[in-house]
Amino acid sequence: MIIVLRPEAPAETAQEILERISAKGLKPLHMPGAERVVLGALGDERILAELALDGHPMVESIKPILAPYKLVSRELHPHDTVVPFGRVAIGGRGFCVIAGPCAVETESQMRATAAAAKAAGAHGLRAGAFKPRTSPYAFQGHGVEGLKLLRATGDEFDLPVVTEVMETGDVEIVAQYADALQIGARNMQNFSLLRAAGRCGKPVLLKRGMSAKVEELLLAAEYLLAEGNEQVILCERGIRTFETAMRNTLDLNAIPYIKQKTHLPVLVDPSHGTGVRDLVIPMALAAAACGADGLLVEMHEDPAVAWSDGAQSLYPEGFEALMAALAPVAAAVGRQLA
Amino acid sequence: MIIVLRPEAPAETAQEILERISAKGLKPLHMPGAERVVLGALGDERILAELALDGHPMVESIKPILAPYKLVSRELHPHDTVVPFGRVAIGGRGFCVIAGPCAVETESQMRATAAAAKAAGAHGLRAGAFKPRTSPYAFQGHGVEGLKLLRATGDEFDLPVVTEVMETGDVEIVAQYADALQIGARNMQNFSLLRAAGRCGKPVLLKRGMSAKVEELLLAAEYLLAEGNEQVILCERGIRTFETAMRNTLDLNAIPYIKQKTHLPVLVDPSHGTGVRDLVIPMALAAAACGADGLLVEMHEDPAVAWSDGAQSLYPEGFEALMAALAPVAAAVGRQLA
Amino acid sequence: MIIVLRPEAPAETAQEILERISAKGLKPLHMPGAERVVLGALGDERILAELALDGHPMVESIKPILAPYKLVSRELHPHDTVVPFGRVAIGGRGFCVIAGPCAVETESQMRATAAAAKAAGAHGLRAGAFKPRTSPYAFQGHGVEGLKLLRATGDEFDLPVVTEVMETGDVEIVAQYADALQIGARNMQNFSLLRAAGRCGKPVLLKRGMSAKVEELLLAAEYLLAEGNEQVILCERGIRTFETAMRNTLDLNAIPYIKQKTHLPVLVDPSHGTGVRDLVIPMALAAAACGADGLLVEMHEDPAVAWSDGAQSLYPEGFEALMAALAPVAAAVGRQLA
Amino acid sequence: MIIVLRPEAPAETAQEILERISAKGLKPLHMPGAERVVLGALGDERILAELALDGHPMVESIKPILAPYKLVSRELHPHDTVVPFGRVAIGGRGFCVIAGPCAVETESQMRATAAAAKAAGAHGLRAGAFKPRTSPYAFQGHGVEGLKLLRATGDEFDLPVVTEVMETGDVEIVAQYADALQIGARNMQNFSLLRAAGRCGKPVLLKRGMSAKVEELLLAAEYLLAEGNEQVILCERGIRTFETAMRNTLDLNAIPYIKQKTHLPVLVDPSHGTGVRDLVIPMALAAAACGADGLLVEMHEDPAVAWSDGAQSLYPEGFEALMAALAPVAAAVGRQLA
Repeated sequence: MIIVLRPEAPAETAQEILERISAKGLKPLHMPGAERVVLGALGDERILAELALDGHPMVESIKPILAPYKLVSRELHPHDTVVPFGRVAIGGRGFCVIAGPCAVETESQMRATAAAAKAAGAHGLRAGAFKPRTSPYAFQGHGVEGLKLLRATGDEFDLPVVTEVMETGDVEIVAQYADALQIGARNMQNFSLLRAAGRCGKPVLLKRGMSAKVEELLLAAEYLLAEGNEQVILCERGIRTFETAMRNTLDLNAIPYIKQKTHLPVLVDPSHGTGVRDLVIPMALAAAACGADGLLVEMHEDPAVAWSDGAQSLYPEGFEALMAALAPVAAAVGRQLA
Repeated sequence: MIIVLRPEAPAETAQEILERISAKGLKPLHMPGAERVVLGALGDERILAELALDGHPMVESIKPILAPYKLVSRELHPHDTVVPFGRVAIGGRGFCVIAGPCAVETESQMRATAAAAKAAGAHGLRAGAFKPRTSPYAFQGHGVEGLKLLRATGDEFDLPVVTEVMETGDVEIVAQYADALQIGARNMQNFSLLRAAGRCGKPVLLKRGMSAKVEELLLAAEYLLAEGNEQVILCERGIRTFETAMRNTLDLNAIPYIKQKTHLPVLVDPSHGTGVRDLVIPMALAAAACGADGLLVEMHEDPAVAWSDGAQSLYPEGFEALMAALAPVAAAVGRQLA
Repeated sequence: MIIVLRPEAPAETAQEILERISAKGLKPLHMPGAERVVLGALGDERILAELALDGHPMVESIKPILAPYKLVSRELHPHDTVVPFGRVAIGGRGFCVIAGPCAVETESQMRATAAAAKAAGAHGLRAGAFKPRTSPYAFQGHGVEGLKLLRATGDEFDLPVVTEVMETGDVEIVAQYADALQIGARNMQNFSLLRAAGRCGKPVLLKRGMSAKVEELLLAAEYLLAEGNEQVILCERGIRTFETAMRNTLDLNAIPYIKQKTHLPVLVDPSHGTGVRDLVIPMALAAAACGADGLLVEMHEDPAVAWSDGAQSLYPEGFEALMAALAPVAAAVGRQLA
Repeated sequence: MIIVLRPEAPAETAQEILERISAKGLKPLHMPGAERVVLGALGDERILAELALDGHPMVESIKPILAPYKLVSRELHPHDTVVPFGRVAIGGRGFCVIAGPCAVETESQMRATAAAAKAAGAHGLRAGAFKPRTSPYAFQGHGVEGLKLLRATGDEFDLPVVTEVMETGDVEIVAQYADALQIGARNMQNFSLLRAAGRCGKPVLLKRGMSAKVEELLLAAEYLLAEGNEQVILCERGIRTFETAMRNTLDLNAIPYIKQKTHLPVLVDPSHGTGVRDLVIPMALAAAACGADGLLVEMHEDPAVAWSDGAQSLYPEGFEALMAALAPVAAAVGRQLA
């Protein structure tokens, strides 16, 4: 950590801060310059955070040297983590596609959609039973009945299932029915939920918040690992920018960046990442090309009557086209679709 | 709601959609143009949402006409709502200042800070017992012990208290100790928490999410009112933009906009809104000038050793200077500080 | 164009506006609803803009129906435009890679870099003679001498050259030396420059501004076509968002969106789009996978001593690796690299 | 400047970089830590920029210590600069209001608007003769005829005039007719134009780009001062964010920040900053409260028929109301309106 003092800081300030650094067992450094005095503290950034020097009136700025996360960092854990999702492995040489509707609506909708997904080669099934909706007047999901229907459909078509959990009190019930728990973008910094999911014993799919920096996503994952859960899958799903032509801006830069910084696997959700059906396939191919470990894709047997997110859901034929286009791109970057 | 069809849409599509509109009991409109067919559906936007037409392959775009919120709207409820916070009224002619440290640290810190706040003219006390922290290694708050200390300090100095609740399971205990519950920026779309807070019987201070549009803030408030809680105070606390010189970009445009759209009172948090101590006073004055109903301000008896958010916390003298500067500005816009 | 009136608008307002619409020769529509009166005007959006109704005190909002651009639109011009760049065609089945240093520095730097680019399979050469720099103290380019050196290097290695023009007065001289003129991100809405470039007789490579919506990029291109220049190549180079881990956020969503809306070809600049050398190759592959017509890539014979943009410049070996990785991805989406 | 090396950097890298630092005449520092080697270079940041170390493959990150601008900095020039605008002084104790229509339309429009502005107490007149318009089909201004009309109107009503210059070739003619030249948001980084304006001998009003960081605004101003022009007025006019309820997000945080960093005066443009007439007055008051030196406000004799920007233009009565409301707020912060 580098600490830059204000030009008017007296000599005693430097002395006082160097002593606070030493008292924490860290190595202090003193670099007096012509225009600013610069201090350094080298050591564990977790201890450095306790110094809380940013409130000091004579401190102009503080610049961290090391990443603030540890357990998720590739520095200490250089090998890729492979997370089991049912019988599917996420994060190895394979490229994994999880598909399904935004929400569990009806048994026939679930069965028709899952059948189409399976036929086209999907590896897993997604659908929401608890739905976070911007408006209180929108469909909020079927809850536990939805979970049961999802589980039954997954079993019928031999597809592992993932579904969102929205609050601490539901972690147990969701973990009972699902092969993996999804923490949605709006809850990426719901720290109570992260801690509960970190203790649930099931893999967790953690989506990036719509205005979360990648570093904040990694710190949110650190909450899960700090609770003992190493089965964590990250997911880029688009960030919020000034562009209004699409629902979100899919940030694919994040994929190779995440792969460098952490050992955890990362998926891409091109459905939320664009919000526009016609953009889903090209962005899915781009995700595969830049190193993602798989996709989370919305499809529906009939998006024209979907209860939610129809605009970004693929038709069964669209999903088939996606899978056909994906295979050669995945192969071109050394990944295997099946 | 205006529905624009794709140029290639056949005549039957228009017919089909008009029938779906009629079937919901809404008034359908047909506007065929040279380059596009435009359809209209007039009526309650809440019913319109159920039409779920955005997934239709022949729909190019959908444009809402009315706001998607109802209960918070000034259209149906033209008079300002005044929310009681202890014996303080938020939202009337008065201008209310709630001050205190980021976190409850120790009894002496709480007493010294509250004494200084009270002496300078603060109307309420704030401090966190449950702290949402980006890193799992940062101080997470004292929990229930912190609640008790906050309550005792408020009682000693005759200041109503507000504090953050981070999860559904804690709503009851926080409501027991606090005069108002704060829902933080990261939880603005934690819909389970909103519903629980909507049933708690205490006023709720709802902070805007760091990437939430004002309309989404109003929809989040709609969750609270839909559960029967009309004692809702909104709070602008800065949004996330590309600017890195400050922690956040305080969006004061939102204040007069919110006052036009809703009857609910709105506060400004210039501490999180800037993240920089030296900017807090000028932005607090700006907030008063553009029509805010009050402030939420971080102050600490000694920010240089604060456990969190020291960089944006005022010293007691700074807070005194703020209150002195605020009085004439509030008066200039017809508000009263005391 | 849909015009929503305020709830308090009197009946005469609707009448007055409908007459203004008719007076322009457009078709007026009247849709009275229970809560709002909605008016419509169907016809050429360019004429609609002249109505200037947004200043009317009784107008609540205005919603366009058609895109505001015409000449660049695929609706009127469904077939892909192929732009000649020297002997290279941009926009057909081929996938075009233009490489080179950020700035023309020295003859030996240019020759070494161009030799490496050519050897690895680049189709064109890029380098700046006029450099837009955030600081007045940074290297601003060699100007006309730089143009000459670029031209000579391009000729020696049989590579067409593109370089940036920064002001109207330089359009002629740049057009004399370059095979295509680049208009940089900071000048995307320098309308004088756009008009001059629209009359220069050479292809123009138009980069998206760092905070420009895609629609604004298309309108900037419309300036070029409106002056008679149809040889326009668009370029996505990253937008500015809250994310600070990279220099910019490469917005690949824009690629398939642009391909749908316009007949013009579009390149991707993964160097500026990321700002980080290690991210350039994966994002270049992603660009190819999602439908870009080619790349603009920064490479330098020795980035460790480059005068500018070294952090995002590939080494010659890196560029070779890029070209090797690119071929199978381009092939996977039906494009040909050579 | 602090240079953090990658963990895998060999000892020779540190040695090599320290020598490059010394060779520039700067003081090198070596700080070996357990996890990273950190190097420092203390001295003029303008020379440091020439080191171009960010391209080095063993450099992980570079952190500046000092601001990259010099002439605009308050560190070297602690007293406020007061810029003469006709007989008005911008930047002293006075608070200056410059008002007028978006564009020069007709003689009667200009005279009616200027008369109303003057009567309400405006200190200067603004109107565009050269108009930057997103669409090539929108009204582009009357050019030199517009300049003449603006000058004549200013003279008639004894109001100094400011108007935008859009390209280098027009600097001379605009400087001939106007008391101050405006460089618009889209041209904030049009460096050729900045240099020409820096040599024109007239005050320059420099507007912040819609996605420019404050530091970039200050560097753009540095271009003007580096050419010898110290008569520079900055202007905050709203930045581009995800919020769509307003045209822009007025960033008032920037005002006190700018006042701390530079000696130059700063105005606020609440018209572009909001894009919504009803928000202009409250945001103008907020601007005065947080320390701005004045306002740039759009008003029009009849916004309902304005050729451009009618939605954000005040009516004459609105402007009168603004001036009446402004006086007590300015007084409350120690400024004088007249």
